[in-house]
Amino acid sequence: MEQKRNMTVGIVGLGLIGGSMAIDLARRGFASRVIGVEADPVNAAAAEKIGLVDRIVDFDDCMEQSDLIVLAVPVGTAVKMLPEVLDRFRSMEDDSPSARKMKKTVMDVCSTKEALVRAVHYHPLRGRYVATHPMAGTEYSGPWAAMPGLFDGRACIICDSQESAPDAVRTVENLYDTLNMRHIYMNASGHDVHVAYVSHISHITSFALALTVLDKEKNEKHIFDLASGGFSSTVRLAKSNADMWVPIFSQNRDNVLQVIDTYIEKMGRFREAIADDDEAAVRTLIEDANRIKRIIR
Amino acid sequence: MEQKRNMTVGIVGLGLIGGSMAIDLARRGFASRVIGVEADPVNAAAAEKIGLVDRIVDFDDCMEQSDLIVLAVPVGTAVKMLPEVLDRFRSMEDDSPSARKMKKTVMDVCSTKEALVRAVHYHPLRGRYVATHPMAGTEYSGPWAAMPGLFDGRACIICDSQESAPDAVRTVENLYDTLNMRHIYMNASGHDVHVAYVSHISHITSFALALTVLDKEKNEKHIFDLASGGFSSTVRLAKSNADMWVPIFSQNRDNVLQVIDTYIEKMGRFREAIADDDEAAVRTLIEDANRIKRIIR
Repeated sequence: MEQKRNMTVGIVGLGLIGGSMAIDLARRGFASRVIGVEADPVNAAAAEKIGLVDRIVDFDDCMEQSDLIVLAVPVGTAVKMLPEVLDRFRSMEDDSPSARKMKKTVMDVCSTKEALVRAVHYHPLRGRYVATHPMAGTEYSGPWAAMPGLFDGRACIICDSQESAPDAVRTVENLYDTLNMRHIYMNASGHDVHVAYVSHISHITSFALALTVLDKEKNEKHIFDLASGGFSSTVRLAKSNADMWVPIFSQNRDNVLQVIDTYIEKMGRFREAIADDDEAAVRTLIEDANRIKRIIR
Repeated sequence: MEQKRNMTVGIVGLGLIGGSMAIDLARRGFASRVIGVEADPVNAAAAEKIGLVDRIVDFDDCMEQSDLIVLAVPVGTAVKMLPEVLDRFRSMEDDSPSARKMKKTVMDVCSTKEALVRAVHYHPLRGRYVATHPMAGTEYSGPWAAMPGLFDGRACIICDSQESAPDAVRTVENLYDTLNMRHIYMNASGHDVHVAYVSHISHITSFALALTVLDKEKNEKHIFDLASGGFSSTVRLAKSNADMWVPIFSQNRDNVLQVIDTYIEKMGRFREAIADDDEAAVRTLIEDANRIKRIIR
């Protein structure tokens, strides 16, 4: 492989995703040095204590010292930060005595992609940015949720790769190879539609389920007693963090609204079939839903 | 313990629940003999091959030979079968030369309880029936889904136990002790309300999610590629069996409709907050839902 031997990776945001990347990129030798930026002082102290990165630095030092920058912040923040990073690359290019071409790369790991690629579409250094989405995670967040092996065997999506410089794409592909992820290539708007259906709606259904049950079951002991494995797994995502999900729903608003409408329509069909005592219709709905068996382990 | 040494347990329905009980009741010495009834010839052959029970018998032999009968069939079937079992007990009592008191016990393991207790409310042998619901399961069904340890550490609900003979309740409590289950006592109608909220709605939200995603994602490969752990766990219950769930929704119709309505209302609030770009409202909904963390592991 043509991977650089002395790669410094700078990770902005040392939460579940950024922190887990930091662990495996260092352990598996992709990065010779991993530095991190963490705006939240509590999270920064935790990341330092856990030893997620070689050093916690400020944003300027991270831009200066990193060959590859990973934006692992909530998507609302990333949309603002990404043009600033490319601007910073540009000023470094200008400052360079030999005016050598910029070889730094920036990637993001956010769950929506269209707003990001749109934010830098006309940027002269657009090619240094690679838009990605590793499909991995847990319902926990923060540096203490970071873990080795989080990405192993999962899929990562690389969006609009034709807009990125080939060497930048290659660097990012190498990174994901190190994390044992399958690559999938898509355009950003297609990505946002698909994740609305497969990921974002799952979170909304879990949040709504938690709200429904909490509303009814004022006696929390009953929930605990009666919650079998089925309920726990269905409601698990309702533990997910607002800082991450508020901007996702906002950025992917139109797709998410569309999928919510489809979902409410399906739920309405269940309601109607049950209300009508139409057992054949309930059976058909369940058997249609069972087709998911063929796809999901 | 005062448990009978030579207890024969007869299990009607050798699916996931009945089959798993058969395994542990024999292995852990609660039953000296476990016999089973299985109406479906394919399932009967599988149960025989796996060796779930000592012998597969017909319904009459099971009634005759068993000290404790476990109805582990879908609730619609159990509602018809339970009065027949008590009638059979009665005719055996009459046939007995010494007219000794009936000591056989019948219990069910269904997910709704009110229709069952109502079906035998005035039966002269009502006391021989114990209404129970072990809160355990997987999304798989049939004898091949049976496994040891399925019930360990979970809760079992015993309903309207004051209507059952004390020795019958004790036998059933001993059975659940053998399965390492915590006992919870409730009345049948309270049970049905609680499980609508904590269990039945989880299944409906999963079914609706599967239908939504399958509807949109005609390209099944995309679902597979993009499904991260979050989607899989949320949609897992959508694999559940129609034979089991159609009668549950039918028996628990009013409670299920009420919880669907609450759920649709919560989903509507999400929709509105996202449509209005009201990030503060989305955040409040998520943070309210996050309270489920305190209750569920």
